[in-house]
Amino acid sequence: MAGNHQTILILGGGGMVGQKLAGQIAAGKLGTPVSEMLLHDIQEAALPAAEFKVHATTGNIADRSEAERMAAQRPDIVFHLAAIVSGDAEANFEKGWDINARGSWHLLEAIRAEHEASGGSYVPRFVFTSSIAVFGAPFPEKIGDEFLCAPQTSYGAQKAMTELLVADYSRKGFIDGISIRLPTICVRPGKPNLAASSFFSGIIREPLNGERAILPVPEETRHWHASPRSAAGFLVHAANLDTALLGGRRSLNMPGVSCTVAEQIEALRKIAGEDAVKLIEPKPDETIMGIVANWPRDFDPARAVELGFKAEQNFEEIIRIYIEDELGGKA
Amino acid sequence: MAGNHQTILILGGGGMVGQKLAGQIAAGKLGTPVSEMLLHDIQEAALPAAEFKVHATTGNIADRSEAERMAAQRPDIVFHLAAIVSGDAEANFEKGWDINARGSWHLLEAIRAEHEASGGSYVPRFVFTSSIAVFGAPFPEKIGDEFLCAPQTSYGAQKAMTELLVADYSRKGFIDGISIRLPTICVRPGKPNLAASSFFSGIIREPLNGERAILPVPEETRHWHASPRSAAGFLVHAANLDTALLGGRRSLNMPGVSCTVAEQIEALRKIAGEDAVKLIEPKPDETIMGIVANWPRDFDPARAVELGFKAEQNFEEIIRIYIEDELGGKA
Repeated sequence: MAGNHQTILILGGGGMVGQKLAGQIAAGKLGTPVSEMLLHDIQEAALPAAEFKVHATTGNIADRSEAERMAAQRPDIVFHLAAIVSGDAEANFEKGWDINARGSWHLLEAIRAEHEASGGSYVPRFVFTSSIAVFGAPFPEKIGDEFLCAPQTSYGAQKAMTELLVADYSRKGFIDGISIRLPTICVRPGKPNLAASSFFSGIIREPLNGERAILPVPEETRHWHASPRSAAGFLVHAANLDTALLGGRRSLNMPGVSCTVAEQIEALRKIAGEDAVKLIEPKPDETIMGIVANWPRDFDPARAVELGFKAEQNFEEIIRIYIEDELGGKA
Repeated sequence: MAGNHQTILILGGGGMVGQKLAGQIAAGKLGTPVSEMLLHDIQEAALPAAEFKVHATTGNIADRSEAERMAAQRPDIVFHLAAIVSGDAEANFEKGWDINARGSWHLLEAIRAEHEASGGSYVPRFVFTSSIAVFGAPFPEKIGDEFLCAPQTSYGAQKAMTELLVADYSRKGFIDGISIRLPTICVRPGKPNLAASSFFSGIIREPLNGERAILPVPEETRHWHASPRSAAGFLVHAANLDTALLGGRRSLNMPGVSCTVAEQIEALRKIAGEDAVKLIEPKPDETIMGIVANWPRDFDPARAVELGFKAEQNFEEIIRIYIEDELGGKA
């Protein structure tokens, strides 16, 4: 801590959303003065230019000692984005539970130890990136704020478990936590990843780059999306939120755009034309279809909207943000 | 395993519900032949008379090695009732998470290791005793089967976390699990315990024994109850259930009786008269009122009812079962 200036730790700061978040904070989006921002990840994270100190450190948060090392910094705000993705966690049961669940628990325990050591004065804002993967089929037409968590992937179960910890550690006053259930982030820049949801971005990103993309699910597949810019924006908003407004419920479904793959493709056609659309190659994949069939399709995120969280209005807007933020405005 | 005869492990077999369960199994209520039943607890459990081998062993399930020792028996059915109660878990944060959450996880990990060592053939039925404490206020008039878990006690969070593990380990085929969310068990025999819900039994049990009882909450307090006999019956039924009927949702709200403290007292009056009722002494306790205010009051347990789980119809019936089972039929 440095006077009224906030110190910030981003775990998973090298990942796509972590980098967007660091960029928004560096650009002053947090709205409060910052003295220092530390980006932690397995590999050294790229650092945005900022008017305050920004640095990077590496380590595996699944190691208890690494969690302790990070908590010992006593950052005012902890953004916890460190995780392995859904496809990886599904294929590697132990690794997933180790990193996504035990790792989060070690971190919260390490922070609790700092809280105790400080005589109770250290209570950081803790913003956890959860996921709509905490939900499992069958679903109502729109998932409301009181719908049960019944995850159908290990990744979703690990996120739901961490949410329970965040809520109980907050209730006890060790942290001031909030869990943000991100929609599927689309359009992700860069390469495809191991997430089963990777293709939702691929079918837009690759054609815009003049490359072929595989579509492993039927065009009727409906899903829930938000842009990387919105995802980082949710986390920034969560860091500033008056958590007294949350009552005993510290997990929030975020706003987003519900659309089918056909509607995604239609939006791509409007923006980039038929030549782009022709680069999408349907190639059904039973494994991915099985996972995605158990994923949410639409939400009524009333609480989050009331609390001021904002996302895109339609999928065209999501593509335009990708073009603005990643392609220098040119499709 | 011994031919078609089932081997049974009851963790928490020395507790009140564990003992009722052991008694029902010893009396042949499981409906399938049993060759052996092992009761595990911190202290040596009493053994019911049975036509098969019944024995006891002691240890702390929060120790990984103890969980491994139990899993190494490869019981066909594991009933997991080992836990510290809500008041204890709320007062002792570390102990609660250690026993109720980490202990359950160690146990599931130990079973998974046996599953792997068996080449995948060992997949025990795993019946976990969860609790309505997984729910937190505000509530709808009746809690339905798709209502969110938002526990407002550490105990509830620990139960909800174990449910997530049971569901994911089942989905992966390591166990064939089911989580039974017990109502508050009433009338508990014996002494008051550290559970914040202890008084719900005390205000019936103590007056029936001619003793004074403290009522720490207002008479309008509404809650959800089932008898110890029903609780054990739920677990027996869960052990026999065709889990394919559960789909991806392995946690079930049990049936029960919704009534106010005033209605409890009225039932006591009918059965034991005004002299018994006079022994109840109102003495508001802010801590207990605070905990109980966040507890469920009424349910619509449609799935469980459809799956054949049965409880009492009213609170008078609950008192009569206590008198039958604990007082030799005489109030």
